[in-house]
Amino acid sequence: MALIDTNHQLTLAARMDGLRSSALRDLLAVAGDPTMISLAGGLPDPDAFPVRELRRSLHRRLRTNPARLLQYGPTEGDPALRHWIALDEGRRHDRPVPDTGVLVTSGAQQGIDLVGRVLVDPGTPVAVEAPAYLGAIQALSVHQPDLVGIPTDEAGLQVDRLEARLAAGFRPRLLYVVSTFQNPTGTTLPLDRRRRLGELADRYGFWIVDDDPYHELRFEGAPLPPIGAFTHRAIRLGTFSKTLAPGLRVGWLVAPPELVGPLVRAKQAADLQPSSLAQPVVADLVAGAGYGHHLNRLRDRYRERAAALGAALDGAFGDHLAWVAPAGGMFLWARFTDGTDTSALLGPALDRGVAYVPGAEFHLDRAPSPWLRLSFATSRPDRLAEAAHRLRDAWRSHPAR
Amino acid sequence: MALIDTNHQLTLAARMDGLRSSALRDLLAVAGDPTMISLAGGLPDPDAFPVRELRRSLHRRLRTNPARLLQYGPTEGDPALRHWIALDEGRRHDRPVPDTGVLVTSGAQQGIDLVGRVLVDPGTPVAVEAPAYLGAIQALSVHQPDLVGIPTDEAGLQVDRLEARLAAGFRPRLLYVVSTFQNPTGTTLPLDRRRRLGELADRYGFWIVDDDPYHELRFEGAPLPPIGAFTHRAIRLGTFSKTLAPGLRVGWLVAPPELVGPLVRAKQAADLQPSSLAQPVVADLVAGAGYGHHLNRLRDRYRERAAALGAALDGAFGDHLAWVAPAGGMFLWARFTDGTDTSALLGPALDRGVAYVPGAEFHLDRAPSPWLRLSFATSRPDRLAEAAHRLRDAWRSHPAR
Repeated sequence: MALIDTNHQLTLAARMDGLRSSALRDLLAVAGDPTMISLAGGLPDPDAFPVRELRRSLHRRLRTNPARLLQYGPTEGDPALRHWIALDEGRRHDRPVPDTGVLVTSGAQQGIDLVGRVLVDPGTPVAVEAPAYLGAIQALSVHQPDLVGIPTDEAGLQVDRLEARLAAGFRPRLLYVVSTFQNPTGTTLPLDRRRRLGELADRYGFWIVDDDPYHELRFEGAPLPPIGAFTHRAIRLGTFSKTLAPGLRVGWLVAPPELVGPLVRAKQAADLQPSSLAQPVVADLVAGAGYGHHLNRLRDRYRERAAALGAALDGAFGDHLAWVAPAGGMFLWARFTDGTDTSALLGPALDRGVAYVPGAEFHLDRAPSPWLRLSFATSRPDRLAEAAHRLRDAWRSHPAR
Repeated sequence: MALIDTNHQLTLAARMDGLRSSALRDLLAVAGDPTMISLAGGLPDPDAFPVRELRRSLHRRLRTNPARLLQYGPTEGDPALRHWIALDEGRRHDRPVPDTGVLVTSGAQQGIDLVGRVLVDPGTPVAVEAPAYLGAIQALSVHQPDLVGIPTDEAGLQVDRLEARLAAGFRPRLLYVVSTFQNPTGTTLPLDRRRRLGELADRYGFWIVDDDPYHELRFEGAPLPPIGAFTHRAIRLGTFSKTLAPGLRVGWLVAPPELVGPLVRAKQAADLQPSSLAQPVVADLVAGAGYGHHLNRLRDRYRERAAALGAALDGAFGDHLAWVAPAGGMFLWARFTDGTDTSALLGPALDRGVAYVPGAEFHLDRAPSPWLRLSFATSRPDRLAEAAHRLRDAWRSHPAR
């Protein structure tokens, strides 16, 4: 283009255009199609949004103290909400977390970006899971790190593989993990791996970003302590997007004291502060008597849907599709045992009215993959069954099989 | 600290700690003191927030279509709001502005940051006004530009000075200006300077960020077209923070087609999207029948306060303080004709219960300055008069005089 000459190239454009997105563009193109059953999204179920409680809180607060919701507020976040988060995080970590260690963010995505701003320079070695959450790769890539994928298995990041690389001289500044009900794999790091990661961070002096958006969506087993329970080098990212509603754009991070100041300044430079309108409402909702009940209903709903999707896939594919039943979260991560390339299968699947995300999208090298990510969060059981049938039809007709 | 060794230094911390902030810290420390009259802030008057309309819109929308306010939404912003902004910007620019040229941001501050991400590399020459808006310096500094201040006079940026530097080989990638009721000076670039800036941008191939938060707060004279009316190399930043309420965190930018894609990807990496909750409400308010009336009330209020502050300063200081009466915005920029160093005067002023921002804070070199910025937006006329008296007492007692 005439307006972009070599002296005025677009810094970020060049970085970002290298990121994967052809399959994602195909998926976006069909996003509005009502006949499509999309298991591709990462959206929570809108029928579970606590609308009545939210409306009540907004109404009351706009009546009694509107300026608190409408005026500028602290960069660090609303004090009442920070306090609630600090108490909650203290319980999870089994040690006190001070209010000053909590920073409210515009969703957990902003947490990743802020950490990138503070800790990542061009060329900085950063370790991520393989496969990894797409949005994290995107947010970190802006800061031009040297991204290194560490393999995962059915219990998440293979910590022994990371350890071997560290022993061989690999020196990441940062490790990014989704520790619980990982996106895309649905796996959860067991206690021993969490502890070991903490030890490695201490020994080798790297930071761990423990991104934990799905923690509360556990429908089986007992919750595990965050990685920050085992090291002071962890930054935990949380969000109310999956428990309350993503449109509020309220998340948080818990950071070690050394990082809080730089993170606050990065937040201030980026967008001054989180939403004054949303934060007091979130504080009302999580402190309300009905919050525990709300979470239980949400878990029941997702548990039922995960089971329905599993049963439908069993019926449709038998041994041709393999997966570990998720114990929480929003995703089922499955593998075609015949090696079907799920990127190649996407077109036929979309033609038949079902969408998913191919496994290749979650890998840095985008190598062909027999894996696919299926979200069960937004579809009722009968739709999940129909989606499984459509996927089977696509798979049966797919020439690459 | 033990946890930060030389290999793991804090990238951003090092950059940001160099930024000016001792006076700002003093100001923050007294921010909660109810006996203090603060003319230091950049806050709009909370009594002017359209609370009733906002409550009504939220109530109705959460009843009829809650998912639109609570679910994830487009990175580019709510389509209805983008459309309203595009039409409004088209009128201002006197040419069609397509919806696709508009990106909703989390306040105008995020607009500055996104532009910085897309256009600024370490060492990139960037021209700013001297004096300039602090938050812009902060947001741009994150990207490590080579900032160059261009002097201003009573009509804003001295375009002939910029032109002389360009002719001498200066090649900025970006010029950042607050074109209307500038912060801190309150000046407005006249039509001929706007046109000339557009010509220079075209000839020398730089981008202009036309940050325009105060445009609607005009209480005298006729509005001027934005710089983008004279060049396609302008990015206009707008916000509803000064016309509706800053706590909503809704601003926008209008960008040339070549920049829209990179800016959208930068926004997505930074925080996915603007608030789903706030955007439809903003769309309701600005499209409502009462919006024009609301703006007129706001202008009346600020006009009255600007006049009251001017009269009080006249009475208190006579010829010892000089300023040009602002025709809009929120600030009066004044100079002690005896050369008083306003940074040195700040302590005595705070002791007497009045706060302002010293002129040095708005300059890259922080050189001592006889200027000070006084906000008239949040104080009633009687309080403005009292503030002038307190300031005179401080000035009279100040040994440096």
